[in-house]
Amino acid sequence: MKKEDLMKKAIELSVENVAAGGGPFGAVIADKEGNIISYGTNRVTASCDPTAHAEMRAIREAAAKLKTFDLSGYDIYSSCEPCPMCMGAIYWAHLDRLFYANTKDDAKKIGFDDSFIYDELKLKLPDRKLQSEQIMRKEALKAFEEWIDKDNKIRY
Amino acid sequence: MKKEDLMKKAIELSVENVAAGGGPFGAVIADKEGNIISYGTNRVTASCDPTAHAEMRAIREAAAKLKTFDLSGYDIYSSCEPCPMCMGAIYWAHLDRLFYANTKDDAKKIGFDDSFIYDELKLKLPDRKLQSEQIMRKEALKAFEEWIDKDNKIRY
Repeated sequence: MKKEDLMKKAIELSVENVAAGGGPFGAVIADKEGNIISYGTNRVTASCDPTAHAEMRAIREAAAKLKTFDLSGYDIYSSCEPCPMCMGAIYWAHLDRLFYANTKDDAKKIGFDDSFIYDELKLKLPDRKLQSEQIMRKEALKAFEEWIDKDNKIRY
Repeated sequence: MKKEDLMKKAIELSVENVAAGGGPFGAVIADKEGNIISYGTNRVTASCDPTAHAEMRAIREAAAKLKTFDLSGYDIYSSCEPCPMCMGAIYWAHLDRLFYANTKDDAKKIGFDDSFIYDELKLKLPDRKLQSEQIMRKEALKAFEEWIDKDNKIRY
């Protein structure tokens, strides 16, 4: 499939998902030949899972299917510019390319918080609306020291 | 439990998880009385899931347990400052407060990409290292229009 056909599939998922009681978002992960590896729709409310965005579900399914946490060599097609959570997951999964259609400002106009979260992350922690407090760093560094000292660890 | 006891638990999880073959991260979600609702450790490599960070797993477990996507009224204790993916999930889950111990710079020093991803998200999409391309916005807006027109939709 060509990139337009893959995006068409992501958009179809987003439209169908509204009728199915979910949010208006769909995503597809494909290899470089355009073969679809996984699909995702937004099931936050339907599955009581605030992390169940279309991109997250497509990434988790592709990783499970391919039995690897590293999706280098694959691309993601999302009906909307991913939120910071999903964008973070795209980086951690090492996906090669992102194709998107709607923007985070389009999502804002229909009531989703994507833009707000992007704005928050640009601020230093004490300046964000989310209350936060750093405690016990000295104690927590112990795990990091053990990680450094560990042989045969799997990096990602 | 007091906040120091809850963080101590998150740190213990992070230390134990290194020995168990996972990344050096742990998280706990608790209510305002200090009762623990859920635990999370990093199982990215162990479970072939790039989204399986400690905070993500604690959020998914708490939401499943409480049967809601809205964790307002609860706090998260993480052994490390959350990455953008996990921070996004904290916002989407509407958690009240974040307590953290190690920082994203501490994580960078032991080889994790948190700081890199934060830096990327500050840039406009065309300026990021991740290749991206916008296509077919006009077609994708259809799902957003159907969302606006839908009665009885569940917002989040």
